[in-house]
Amino acid sequence: MNDMSKIDTLEVGFDVPAKVGMNEADIQTPCLILDLDALERNIRKMGDYARAHGMRHRAHGKMHKSVDVMKLQESLGGAVGVCCQKVSEAEVFARGGIRDILVSNQVRDPAKIDRLARLPNYGCRVIVCVDDVANVADLSAAARKHGATIECLVEIDCGAGRCGVTTTPAVVEIAKAIAAAPNLKFTGIQAYQGAMQHLDSFEARKAKLDAAIAQVKDAVEALKAEGLDPELVSGGGTGSYYFESNSGVYNELQCGSYAFMDADYGRIHDKDGQRIDQGEWENALFILTSVMSHAKPDKAICDAGLKAQSVDSGLPFVYGRDDVRYVKCSDEHGVIEDPNGALKVNDKLRLVPGHCDPTCNVHDWYVGVRNGKVEALWPVSARGKAY
Amino acid sequence: MNDMSKIDTLEVGFDVPAKVGMNEADIQTPCLILDLDALERNIRKMGDYARAHGMRHRAHGKMHKSVDVMKLQESLGGAVGVCCQKVSEAEVFARGGIRDILVSNQVRDPAKIDRLARLPNYGCRVIVCVDDVANVADLSAAARKHGATIECLVEIDCGAGRCGVTTTPAVVEIAKAIAAAPNLKFTGIQAYQGAMQHLDSFEARKAKLDAAIAQVKDAVEALKAEGLDPELVSGGGTGSYYFESNSGVYNELQCGSYAFMDADYGRIHDKDGQRIDQGEWENALFILTSVMSHAKPDKAICDAGLKAQSVDSGLPFVYGRDDVRYVKCSDEHGVIEDPNGALKVNDKLRLVPGHCDPTCNVHDWYVGVRNGKVEALWPVSARGKAY
Repeated sequence: MNDMSKIDTLEVGFDVPAKVGMNEADIQTPCLILDLDALERNIRKMGDYARAHGMRHRAHGKMHKSVDVMKLQESLGGAVGVCCQKVSEAEVFARGGIRDILVSNQVRDPAKIDRLARLPNYGCRVIVCVDDVANVADLSAAARKHGATIECLVEIDCGAGRCGVTTTPAVVEIAKAIAAAPNLKFTGIQAYQGAMQHLDSFEARKAKLDAAIAQVKDAVEALKAEGLDPELVSGGGTGSYYFESNSGVYNELQCGSYAFMDADYGRIHDKDGQRIDQGEWENALFILTSVMSHAKPDKAICDAGLKAQSVDSGLPFVYGRDDVRYVKCSDEHGVIEDPNGALKVNDKLRLVPGHCDPTCNVHDWYVGVRNGKVEALWPVSARGKAY
Repeated sequence: MNDMSKIDTLEVGFDVPAKVGMNEADIQTPCLILDLDALERNIRKMGDYARAHGMRHRAHGKMHKSVDVMKLQESLGGAVGVCCQKVSEAEVFARGGIRDILVSNQVRDPAKIDRLARLPNYGCRVIVCVDDVANVADLSAAARKHGATIECLVEIDCGAGRCGVTTTPAVVEIAKAIAAAPNLKFTGIQAYQGAMQHLDSFEARKAKLDAAIAQVKDAVEALKAEGLDPELVSGGGTGSYYFESNSGVYNELQCGSYAFMDADYGRIHDKDGQRIDQGEWENALFILTSVMSHAKPDKAICDAGLKAQSVDSGLPFVYGRDDVRYVKCSDEHGVIEDPNGALKVNDKLRLVPGHCDPTCNVHDWYVGVRNGKVEALWPVSARGKAY
């Protein structure tokens, strides 16, 4: 509930970590900062890539949960719309003016289905994933009730091992049910191979994607044979988009992390064996942290712990420093090995979080910086929107 | 920024997961629910224990970040006040009417010191920890500027390996500096052995606490010899409070997790070798989650992933169920092994989170339930207050 109408009355410290125009040195920590130059370069680069490969790019809003970042992805990166994982996120993006919204997930709870069916009233296209024929009647009834059309993608589990059906006959069965249901439209296929995105080796990722693409191709051919030509075949992430783009079967990408980067994605390798955060993408997202105790000579304690990040995919690294290392994370503290005593109390460091998505979800604000000044203060508009 | 004045206008789903009076079955998931009966029993039990042992109990508000839970700890549990880890948390508790506030942490940033010094204007006692004599002059100057008194505890690192000094002479040196500084008061010692709280074995925890208590005793005797008798010797957590209570040197406890419990704490053993969540404390906090896909017969997918919890201390367990098991967590999904196909789509489950503190910090609301009805909707008032 970030009420932006009151932004001028917000107090630095209590309400917000910074205000526009402030020097970077005065930002209250810990908080998320965005290097706006790096962010814009990442967004433009992905847009250029998608355009050059004839792909639509639907940016994944679950990563940043920000209407402001999404609008930058539309304006600078040519993104065709957003995908997100929860109805509550879709509500935020719809209210924020995004006009093409895919909930790349199942919606089964009756109250949530009703909320989903109300979203087209904001003037946006609404697409959802289906992996169970039993879901079709409920979606159709809610769409009829609200005089709306809900578009549906059949979700294929092509290796993520979560939602989605695994066989072509199951895909065809659900697609037919959707096509026959009032107020629903069969729009295509969702097939995101989530489990392979973080494999370090390019070849290992390619092998997993080759199998996924073969599975999706088989389903698409069977659908065409039934007269159900999919308009969208959507999927692909930061660790795989080049495979989907050259597959001849996908026509829409769903990348998210490329815009911000994180430590876990950063360490995977491109086709030349180079870490992707050392060429392909730039680190644009950081946790700004301060040293707040240095009572032992070789150990600095900083103010960014588990309340400022998620460590599910490993600890953060200290950006641009080889001499100090973030080695331990507790609720409110990070322990930084400082063997040479290089750090002083109140020194500020930029941490690259292990995993950007759940890290962004604990913060209320992005502080956008350029040339040492705070240029933007953007709410994490869909933060906490999990239901 | 939960603006409670607008609570009647909040929309279930978009803004809040539930409203007071609603049936538990209609709560939107994932969200945090509190079993109010269990919560009240835990709070009363700790209050009774502290009273019987002549200890003050300062409840740790960093765990729940909730003014409402804190007020219950005062009214039902006789808590003398709150401790918390950040100035922004202290600001929330001060504005919420808590009158005795310890920031059990260092405050070094000049802007934060200034904010700390303004807190006594809310009519509350303000105490902070110090582990560096260089911090004393800054705290004193800010307190003078605002016509306030800041009370100070010298922090001893008695095994946590984070902030705090490790030797008695260092304790005495800082205490003297505090006692001599205008507008500061030397109030005592902070000594929390955080690293041992989660050791499973009672004997292993006792050995660590014996060492910590000896260290604290030594410091207290040296302070007394200098005429600096500490008013407060504060520390102790859910895994150790019986040791501090019987130490003859501590007089204030700082327990937090006992009120809610979690999976990581639950598995430690009491002196009789019993898990503490099977007798000593009850699980009062749960993540309510729904099954939202069951496309594979032996695997249910639920809607609570990394955006609904922190898995730093391990995965959640499914409360009251031996037949199903939460085995994998991704951003928005949990994978639940369901070998007998016992679960159906839209079934709701209660998850006990691995670690309560950072899990509470990703949610905006506690939904308090009793007898199948929603009885309370409390904001996680200091959620995201990390700076």
